[in-house]
Amino acid sequence: MKCIDNGVTAPKGFKASGVGAGIKTGSTKKDCALIASDLPANVAGVFTKNVMKSPPVVWSKDVCDRGKARAVFVNSGNANACTGEQGANDVRTTVERIAGGLGVESGEVCICSTGVIGVMLPMERIAKGVDACMEELCETGGLDAARAIMTTDTVPKEMAVEVELSSGSVRLGAIAKGAGMIMPNMATMICVITTDASIGSELLQGLLRDAVNVSFNRICIDNDMSTSDTVLCLANGASETAAIAVGSDDCYAFSAALTDLCQGMAKKLVKDGEGATKFVELDVSGAQSDDDAMAIAKAIATSQLCKTAFFGEDPNIGRFACAAGYAGVDFAPSDLCICLDNVQVLKNGLAAQYEEADAAAVMKKADFKIGVKVGNGPGTAVFWTSDLSHDYVSINADYRT
Amino acid sequence: MKCIDNGVTAPKGFKASGVGAGIKTGSTKKDCALIASDLPANVAGVFTKNVMKSPPVVWSKDVCDRGKARAVFVNSGNANACTGEQGANDVRTTVERIAGGLGVESGEVCICSTGVIGVMLPMERIAKGVDACMEELCETGGLDAARAIMTTDTVPKEMAVEVELSSGSVRLGAIAKGAGMIMPNMATMICVITTDASIGSELLQGLLRDAVNVSFNRICIDNDMSTSDTVLCLANGASETAAIAVGSDDCYAFSAALTDLCQGMAKKLVKDGEGATKFVELDVSGAQSDDDAMAIAKAIATSQLCKTAFFGEDPNIGRFACAAGYAGVDFAPSDLCICLDNVQVLKNGLAAQYEEADAAAVMKKADFKIGVKVGNGPGTAVFWTSDLSHDYVSINADYRT
Repeated sequence: MKCIDNGVTAPKGFKASGVGAGIKTGSTKKDCALIASDLPANVAGVFTKNVMKSPPVVWSKDVCDRGKARAVFVNSGNANACTGEQGANDVRTTVERIAGGLGVESGEVCICSTGVIGVMLPMERIAKGVDACMEELCETGGLDAARAIMTTDTVPKEMAVEVELSSGSVRLGAIAKGAGMIMPNMATMICVITTDASIGSELLQGLLRDAVNVSFNRICIDNDMSTSDTVLCLANGASETAAIAVGSDDCYAFSAALTDLCQGMAKKLVKDGEGATKFVELDVSGAQSDDDAMAIAKAIATSQLCKTAFFGEDPNIGRFACAAGYAGVDFAPSDLCICLDNVQVLKNGLAAQYEEADAAAVMKKADFKIGVKVGNGPGTAVFWTSDLSHDYVSINADYRT
Repeated sequence: MKCIDNGVTAPKGFKASGVGAGIKTGSTKKDCALIASDLPANVAGVFTKNVMKSPPVVWSKDVCDRGKARAVFVNSGNANACTGEQGANDVRTTVERIAGGLGVESGEVCICSTGVIGVMLPMERIAKGVDACMEELCETGGLDAARAIMTTDTVPKEMAVEVELSSGSVRLGAIAKGAGMIMPNMATMICVITTDASIGSELLQGLLRDAVNVSFNRICIDNDMSTSDTVLCLANGASETAAIAVGSDDCYAFSAALTDLCQGMAKKLVKDGEGATKFVELDVSGAQSDDDAMAIAKAIATSQLCKTAFFGEDPNIGRFACAAGYAGVDFAPSDLCICLDNVQVLKNGLAAQYEEADAAAVMKKADFKIGVKVGNGPGTAVFWTSDLSHDYVSINADYRT
C-alpha cells in the first residue's frame, strides 16, 4: 500500500468539483461539492445516531440501504437540520436537479449538508451551486471538493492510497471535513470515500463500519455528536480487478487499506480541531476487555480538565489518574501506571520517580502519547484527542455572529 | 422554614474554626478547617464513586459506616490522593492528633482533603493547622471554616436554615467548596452539614442521599468527577427536640429543609463555577421517565458547544436541539420544543416564530432557564449548569503553575 495524490479523484472513473454559491450569505468561499462516478457504484454509509437526524442524512441512508449510487453532493454553510418537511422537500428538489443533469436516477444521489442548524436551505443558491458543480466536474477536482466542504476547518483534508490485490491494483481516495462537534460515535463530520475496487455493497458496508469503529469513532475534539455526521464509500469497479470475496486475502488487504485511510483522515480531523494546539494519543492497556480500555481512554480524552492541562502543557498526572478512575471501569488503584511518551509519571497508583522537567518537555511537544496501564488484562484501546484552548472558546462563542 | 446566619455554627452545640497553615507552599490563605460537635453526633455521608478514592475518603466512609462522629477536619491545597499507604498513614496521624486534642475517639473524626493530587501531605504544617484549629474553635467560626476550605472558589459558601418540627425548631447549617471538576455524581466538592436535630444515622443517611440526588448530582461546571468528593452531615440532637421518626411529618419537614439546603449550596457552587459568567437552569419535561429527562438535561448541560454558546450569549437553538438528540433517549424529533425563559425558539422540531432579539435578550441575562419538552410523558428533570469561558481555560491551563 502506498499513498498517492488526488484524493477522491485518485481512483479511476471518479470526477469531482467544488464551487462557491454563497450558501453562507456574504461569503465567497467554495461551499458546494459534487463527486460523481462514471459507472454505477456500490455504496455503503455510516451515519449519526442522533435522534434529530437531518433530512439529508435520512435520504442518504435510504440510498445506502438500496446499495447503489452515482453521485454525492455536499454543501457547507447550512446543515438543513431541524427543518422538517420543508427540509425533506429541499433534499428531493436538489437530488432531482443533480440526477437530471447527470442522467441518473435521483435515488442514486447521496446528499450531505453541514453548517448552521435550524435554517432552511437557500434553494436558489443551491440550484446555482448544483449547476456549477456539474459543469466543473473533472478528474482532478478532488481538492476543490475537499475545499468546498470545509466549515471551521482551516485546511482541506484529502488522502488517497493504492493497494495491490491479486488481480491488480486498486485505489481508494477520501475527502473529509470536521473540526468541532467531533466525538466518539462521529461528529459534525462528513467523509466521502471513493474506490475503483469491485466489491458488493453488503461486504463494503461491513468493512466500512469496522473501519469507522477504529477511526472516526476513536477521536474527540469536543464532546458533541451532530445531526449530520456521515461517512459514505462508493465503489465503482473501474479498476477492472476481480470482485473482492468475503474472507479472501484481497478482502483483508482492501479492509486494511480502508482502515488506514479512515484512521489517516480521523487524525487529520483531530489535528485541525477547533483551536487545537496539541495532538494526543491515548494508549490504554491491561484492562479486562477492549471496551473497558476504550472507556478509560475516552474518559481521559474527553475530560475538560485533562484537555486544558494539555493546552497548558501541564503534566498534571492527578487529572489523568482521576479521569481514569471515573470511567466506570473497575480496576485496582495500585495497578494504575501512566507514561507520558517514555517518562513514567505514575507507578502502581503513586507518583513515580521522575524529573518534572522531563514530563513537562513531553507536554510541550505538539504531538505526544499518554500510555495508561490498569492491570494485566488483555484489553487495549487507542484514541486520539486534542486540547481545549482559548481559541476553541472564541470560535464557538461567536460561531453564528 | 427560614434562612438564618452563621452557616455550620448556626445549629446548637457546634463550633468551628478556619486557619492558615501554609499547606499550599507560599500561600498565606486559610487552608485548615475544623467543625466539632459538643455532643456525640450521628453522621451520614455520600462520597465519590471514583475508583481512585483518596485515603481521606476511605477513612471518612468508614466513620460514616459506624454512624458516630464528633468532628470533621478539612484541609485545602492538597488532596492527599494517589498517595497510597503513606497517604493512609498521614490520615491516621492527623485524626489521632485531633482526637487527642478534643478528647474523643479517632474513629469519630472525619477528614477531607482537597487540592493537588499526587503529592504527599506536608505533615508538619498539617499538625500546625490542626493545633491552631483546635485553639480557635468557637460558636461563630462557620465563616472562617467556609473560607479555609476554598480552592479556586472566589467566594466562601455557607448557608443555614431553621425549620419548625412538632416539638420545637431545629437548625441546619452548611459550608461547601467546589468550583471546577463539578459533575453529576459529585465533584471536587466538599460539603459539611451540621444539624441540632435528633435523628438516627440510618435515617439521616437515606435522607442525605435523596437530597444529594436532587442537588449536588444535578449540577455541572465541567465534566470531571474527583477523587475527593464528600458530603457529610452531623446531627447532634442539641435542639433537644424529639427524635425524628421515619415517615413522620417531622421527617418530611426535615427532609425538605435538608433538600433545600443542599440545592441552595449546589446552586452556589455553579454560580461560582470556574470562569462562569452564566447560571443556566435546564428544565426538561414530557419524557417517558425521569431518567430519560435527566439524560437530556445532562446532555445539554454538559455539552461544550452549548456551554460556549451560553458564554457567547448566542441563542444557538441548533446546538441545544442537537445535544437533546444525542442524549441516548428515544423521542420523536417533531415533539421537540425549546423555550429560553418565555421565548419559544423551537416548536415541534422546527424553528419557531420569534424575534431573534428576544431570544438574544434572554441569553444576555446572568441567570436564565432553558425549557425542553420532548413529548407528553410524565418524566421531568431539573439541572443547573454554567458556561464555558476563556477564564475557565485560563484557570485550568495554569492550575499548578
